[in-house]
Amino acid sequence: MTPAEILKHIRNIPDFPKQGIMFKDITTALKEPEVFQSIIDNMYEQIKGLDIDYIAAIESRGYLFGAPLACKMGKGLVLIRKSGKLPAEVVRQEYSLEYGTDALEMHKDAVEKGKKVLLVDDLLATGGTVRAAVGLVEQVGAEAVGALFLLELQQLSSAANLPIPVYSLIRC
Amino acid sequence: MTPAEILKHIRNIPDFPKQGIMFKDITTALKEPEVFQSIIDNMYEQIKGLDIDYIAAIESRGYLFGAPLACKMGKGLVLIRKSGKLPAEVVRQEYSLEYGTDALEMHKDAVEKGKKVLLVDDLLATGGTVRAAVGLVEQVGAEAVGALFLLELQQLSSAANLPIPVYSLIRC
Repeated sequence: MTPAEILKHIRNIPDFPKQGIMFKDITTALKEPEVFQSIIDNMYEQIKGLDIDYIAAIESRGYLFGAPLACKMGKGLVLIRKSGKLPAEVVRQEYSLEYGTDALEMHKDAVEKGKKVLLVDDLLATGGTVRAAVGLVEQVGAEAVGALFLLELQQLSSAANLPIPVYSLIRC
Repeated sequence: MTPAEILKHIRNIPDFPKQGIMFKDITTALKEPEVFQSIIDNMYEQIKGLDIDYIAAIESRGYLFGAPLACKMGKGLVLIRKSGKLPAEVVRQEYSLEYGTDALEMHKDAVEKGKKVLLVDDLLATGGTVRAAVGLVEQVGAEAVGALFLLELQQLSSAANLPIPVYSLIRC
């Protein structure tokens, strides 16, 4: 199944989470076994040539793709979580929202110094989350070698502003 | 790797999220490729004989195991999410916390009537979450045929009170 065929299984929901936003609902793709499998296979094809030590999945929809990819590639899985969720000592990176700020955290001992990390999330929009994730990886002295997404919203054209290579399955 | 060996890679963090709780930190297991792979393989062995149509993963740590299992088994993945996260029409089930209540939601069209669903989460403690998840599956006229966990906290002995079969990799 090609990325264009996968896109047909992603549902558009108008005005969620608020008026004027067209939300990309991936649940309709995940529930079709052959579509979900194709997503993981296509993601794998995009990044199989990269030299990486860990896959870091961004909570929570990043887990849906990061976990199967880590299994398929035989790589360790690292969690990048929302504030206050991780139990051990963390590094923390704040990022701006439309109103106010939010923060992501990662365990300080999640990734050893000098290791190469691939970030995984479902969607690239403004890039705020993934920039914070790059900051976390850098805080522990490791290297974010790329960011992999199922969907990239091109109209927000954030990819060009990211400090690392972007791999996205579907640009829409 | 046996479940007993997997358990050695799960870290105990005292007093998280609050005083007196010994938190089971699975991040140390996930970051070791062979441990994470063994978890998924062992989970698969436990439930491969079940007749199921969908794997329903409970947000967010349930995604870490439900997503790789759905891929491995070639089953559709359904998301059971916290309140307000799903964009289309949902069914909703409240459950009690120590103070107050919380709620889980699932898309109304996530699972068709009569289909068989396996619930997946990281941890079985009091069972409140998984009971709510069973309620969601029943609300859409489908059947929850079992619940699969990485860890079961036996001292809370909730398994016996669940209305469906429990499959847990590690009882501790």
